[in-house]
Amino acid sequence: MINVAIIGASGYSGAELLRILLRHPEVRVTTVTAASSAGMAVDQVYPAFTGECELTYKSLLPDDLAGADVAFVALPSGEAMKIMPKLRTMVGKVIDLGGDFRLKDTAQYEKYYKHQHASAELLPGAVYGLPELNRDAIAGAALVSNPGCYATSIILGLLPLAAQGLISTSGISVSAVSGISGAGRSSSVDMSFSELNENVRAYKLTTHQHVPEIEQTLETVTAGAPVTVSFVPHLVPITRGIHSTIHASLKGDSDSKAIHDAFARYYGLHPFVRVRQQPVQVAAVNRTNYCDIHAVVESRTRQVVVTSVIDNLMKGAAGQAVQNMNLMFGLKETTGL
Amino acid sequence: MINVAIIGASGYSGAELLRILLRHPEVRVTTVTAASSAGMAVDQVYPAFTGECELTYKSLLPDDLAGADVAFVALPSGEAMKIMPKLRTMVGKVIDLGGDFRLKDTAQYEKYYKHQHASAELLPGAVYGLPELNRDAIAGAALVSNPGCYATSIILGLLPLAAQGLISTSGISVSAVSGISGAGRSSSVDMSFSELNENVRAYKLTTHQHVPEIEQTLETVTAGAPVTVSFVPHLVPITRGIHSTIHASLKGDSDSKAIHDAFARYYGLHPFVRVRQQPVQVAAVNRTNYCDIHAVVESRTRQVVVTSVIDNLMKGAAGQAVQNMNLMFGLKETTGL
Amino acid sequence: MINVAIIGASGYSGAELLRILLRHPEVRVTTVTAASSAGMAVDQVYPAFTGECELTYKSLLPDDLAGADVAFVALPSGEAMKIMPKLRTMVGKVIDLGGDFRLKDTAQYEKYYKHQHASAELLPGAVYGLPELNRDAIAGAALVSNPGCYATSIILGLLPLAAQGLISTSGISVSAVSGISGAGRSSSVDMSFSELNENVRAYKLTTHQHVPEIEQTLETVTAGAPVTVSFVPHLVPITRGIHSTIHASLKGDSDSKAIHDAFARYYGLHPFVRVRQQPVQVAAVNRTNYCDIHAVVESRTRQVVVTSVIDNLMKGAAGQAVQNMNLMFGLKETTGL
Amino acid sequence: MINVAIIGASGYSGAELLRILLRHPEVRVTTVTAASSAGMAVDQVYPAFTGECELTYKSLLPDDLAGADVAFVALPSGEAMKIMPKLRTMVGKVIDLGGDFRLKDTAQYEKYYKHQHASAELLPGAVYGLPELNRDAIAGAALVSNPGCYATSIILGLLPLAAQGLISTSGISVSAVSGISGAGRSSSVDMSFSELNENVRAYKLTTHQHVPEIEQTLETVTAGAPVTVSFVPHLVPITRGIHSTIHASLKGDSDSKAIHDAFARYYGLHPFVRVRQQPVQVAAVNRTNYCDIHAVVESRTRQVVVTSVIDNLMKGAAGQAVQNMNLMFGLKETTGL
Repeated sequence: MINVAIIGASGYSGAELLRILLRHPEVRVTTVTAASSAGMAVDQVYPAFTGECELTYKSLLPDDLAGADVAFVALPSGEAMKIMPKLRTMVGKVIDLGGDFRLKDTAQYEKYYKHQHASAELLPGAVYGLPELNRDAIAGAALVSNPGCYATSIILGLLPLAAQGLISTSGISVSAVSGISGAGRSSSVDMSFSELNENVRAYKLTTHQHVPEIEQTLETVTAGAPVTVSFVPHLVPITRGIHSTIHASLKGDSDSKAIHDAFARYYGLHPFVRVRQQPVQVAAVNRTNYCDIHAVVESRTRQVVVTSVIDNLMKGAAGQAVQNMNLMFGLKETTGL
Repeated sequence: MINVAIIGASGYSGAELLRILLRHPEVRVTTVTAASSAGMAVDQVYPAFTGECELTYKSLLPDDLAGADVAFVALPSGEAMKIMPKLRTMVGKVIDLGGDFRLKDTAQYEKYYKHQHASAELLPGAVYGLPELNRDAIAGAALVSNPGCYATSIILGLLPLAAQGLISTSGISVSAVSGISGAGRSSSVDMSFSELNENVRAYKLTTHQHVPEIEQTLETVTAGAPVTVSFVPHLVPITRGIHSTIHASLKGDSDSKAIHDAFARYYGLHPFVRVRQQPVQVAAVNRTNYCDIHAVVESRTRQVVVTSVIDNLMKGAAGQAVQNMNLMFGLKETTGL
Repeated sequence: MINVAIIGASGYSGAELLRILLRHPEVRVTTVTAASSAGMAVDQVYPAFTGECELTYKSLLPDDLAGADVAFVALPSGEAMKIMPKLRTMVGKVIDLGGDFRLKDTAQYEKYYKHQHASAELLPGAVYGLPELNRDAIAGAALVSNPGCYATSIILGLLPLAAQGLISTSGISVSAVSGISGAGRSSSVDMSFSELNENVRAYKLTTHQHVPEIEQTLETVTAGAPVTVSFVPHLVPITRGIHSTIHASLKGDSDSKAIHDAFARYYGLHPFVRVRQQPVQVAAVNRTNYCDIHAVVESRTRQVVVTSVIDNLMKGAAGQAVQNMNLMFGLKETTGL
Repeated sequence: MINVAIIGASGYSGAELLRILLRHPEVRVTTVTAASSAGMAVDQVYPAFTGECELTYKSLLPDDLAGADVAFVALPSGEAMKIMPKLRTMVGKVIDLGGDFRLKDTAQYEKYYKHQHASAELLPGAVYGLPELNRDAIAGAALVSNPGCYATSIILGLLPLAAQGLISTSGISVSAVSGISGAGRSSSVDMSFSELNENVRAYKLTTHQHVPEIEQTLETVTAGAPVTVSFVPHLVPITRGIHSTIHASLKGDSDSKAIHDAFARYYGLHPFVRVRQQPVQVAAVNRTNYCDIHAVVESRTRQVVVTSVIDNLMKGAAGQAVQNMNLMFGLKETTGL
């Protein structure tokens, strides 16, 4: 059995991790930490866990982690990098679900995350945890940086096109909508039911921190060609799910079938990406680790239009983190998912 | 008092028209027709009208329309064109809320609406009822073709940019989401609550009938430059509202302030367009005739990003139709709205 | 024109008041106060008011209220009673939307509201602002206490039955569901979208503060017979609306028709209560001041089953407050509503 | 492995059965039948099953069921009773999810279901599949009649009280709300998103077919005392979940603790009922087979107030059916759930 600690387990990503790991056949969750909920039983905070989990949230004390084989870190951006150097000495494998170790370039980090990086020395060794791109590197990694939710959906929707030179990698535009759980367990007026129900709104129009993550990742497959993405995220009144709609200019004369086949080939051996003949929908991936993708050529405008959906708490966070854990421990990628 | 007939009054657009017109100070609704609900009282079909409206739906018999000063037609596409020649001889002014008289080119009509046009001879005289573009022509029109809901939101979000040459008019991409009432009063599984709640999905990815309407309309202000728009509509679980997100390539070196100012100038005398400094939201226009617009330049990618919201049943249908009626009868544009 | 001040205008009830009053033909809103939003323009807090309202929230300074003909008070419970003595000397007519002046018995107040009453001397003169019960007294009142939202829905669903002795007034059970706006403009995790969407839960199971309000009010029509109500409120994922389902034991042998007729007679001259032959629904009263009621006898169990719906922000708060204002100023009860 | 056939597998209950059974460690689903979807692959109708299930819906031909160890029947009321005599000869164990075999009294059946019973001879042998009441009988049954969704929630909320004589079993009133999936996969206007969103409405006010089911079942534990329940079901805009609120008159002088303890004792050995100290909520049982129950005494009114929640597709349908299957095959009750 793999002994697991979850650091920052009282948020939605942490709770989702717990939900998955409690049923994972190879795992024993030994420690769950939380700041404001320390001392409370997990099922007090989340009544759904009653009868399923006897654990109590603890404050984070690194010595309590001795014995853990892997730690998942689900802390707000800026917090993980503070504890990571010490944590790495205590636990052999770490999977960070936040944004602190995703960007290789600290200047980009500081521009988008609005604070300095405190553990830049760990960045070169951190592996970007997108199994459909980095499966082997993840298997050998000690520190995996789990991708952002929007980034997962968008990168998977562009990877085959970018890698095979089927689109112009500049001038890509993306409009995506997210369920509200993506904003975390929040107590702001902005996230209250009455403000979000029967409403749709864009936010962080040109400033979302997943933009450099997407560009940096796609640039690893374009043989040096720069990638620029214009990205608008929106909130819609659902709890879970991301739907991304991507426009890119076609290069060459591929038709819809050729584009579909390029996706199907690329993801042929990746069990969690389903390439579809029909437009995708969020409900089809709800509470699963799948990313469903549909791509079509609009011949009139020479645009490739890709739609891509995930569950933001699963393939966009906890599910992908467990997928990474499975790879890091030599398990079948789909175990427990 | 203006005597009004509503033809096809039992759908959502018809009911919204009735809601507005019952409170309009210059109007008396004399006739409401419906096919399957003929013989039923309006408040049987819509209990909200109890105590507000004593009318009963009738079958459409043209002779019953004698005495009407204006007829609103809210029929499915393909139905309005069948009755229009006769209707035009009975009623002096007609406002059609459907798609039959929006496209000047019957080839485009047939391509997107999938059937032949039965009244092509009326197309030249039909005025496209977007007051922010055609206010004077509407005032003198006998047949006004009320714009589509998506088309209204998108055209208003592009008009100043296209008219003033601030963007490249090819390669525009638009992703828009709509509330479900836009699909009409429907009895299909696809429109059932359980299929749409907690779901988001794209549809008619490259084939939506508002595309030629948008392109045709914008081309009237570009001095002959062609306009191409790649448009993806989506359904989200709200009842009312459209949110459009538009990407266009900047021409020249305008910054966000210049773009904002271009919008503000263009719509300065148009009471129902509000140009905003902040991202817009659907809830702010709920049950109003406003279109709220926000535009910004993303300097990194040289894209203009416009967000535009309307209530699909108001500015996207019934509200705009009443705005047109006001203009056609020499009333203040905002009367009763 | 009636000069109006709204004290506590930045919450949902205050904003709804403003929405109604800006269109009311006999009213000019001169002052809006708010605590945390003081100094902000109304349309910064509520973008829907852009172009509709130029007012800015002020801190509450009693001298600013000189010149107001009426003040609406929409403050949290416990706040209105602190300012009321002074306010009454400044403004001739006051309508309080909170709970501070609803209960005649301070012991009950303190039991349910959990703090002492600071202005008990004003209680005898406060008129309970339910026009369907107290129309004449409201017309002559200087201080009107606007009913609670649940209380309005439930009292209107029981008044004719209690007044005419058609039911046993003990052993009444009520289960009601409310939209989330009833909880106010809130920044708690409990009121966040992700906690309330796809969820239903009861709260304040035997302790809701509207219970003594309902019992006290109904007891004014039972010739001294005590009234006991067991009430369970619930939250459901809608923004606006209350649906109350009431079970009471039938006295005598009335059938459904007799019960319906008793309601119809009782409310015959009350324009905002619609007695219906069919089960009611929240959507039919959305954004209106109506209360729709349906009542039926279940002969098998000798129960009268009443369903009653309102919009909690309208007939349950701001709409009813304006209805009261109309009566206090000798206007037609429905003016502006 | 247990070979399973699902008859009527294209509705929501059938799809939920499939979802559970595909992951059940002791089961192989061999046949899925459907009427209108016959010939379609399961993942065409439900894209969520892509990559999870290769089955195709077939028309129901009894000979195709040879080899099935158990058949689940998820047909509309009135259909199961037509095929059951033949089906019983083909398959050794049958679990019917519809209402045809729940009522022992055909007169009651015909009153509430509005048609004659075609297989009354099978009623005596049908076991009511509520494991918390009939665990042993289910283990030995050949035909199990799975309880109704509302009935499950309400019976579980009353069983300990009725069995131990803690309440008066006449005059029980129940108000319950259901998610829309309870109405099945429907193509009616009434079940469309636009009609149900932002709405709450009661239906079948005194005529719901679960009333006789509840009364008949509770009467098996009251030593002959009759049970009468007045029940009002409502639709609320959620997809899954039932929340029942029950009022019953206390007999004797139990306090809240005694009532809680009676529930806790009764369900001590039943893994799917969680007796809680706090009010329950639908979200806590979403996609689980749990029934969460909270009970309290309101001393002022001598009422016991019980709230009880389930997922209508799980404990209210497919989950409970699999729980029954586990018992019928001697498996641990919780296997695969």
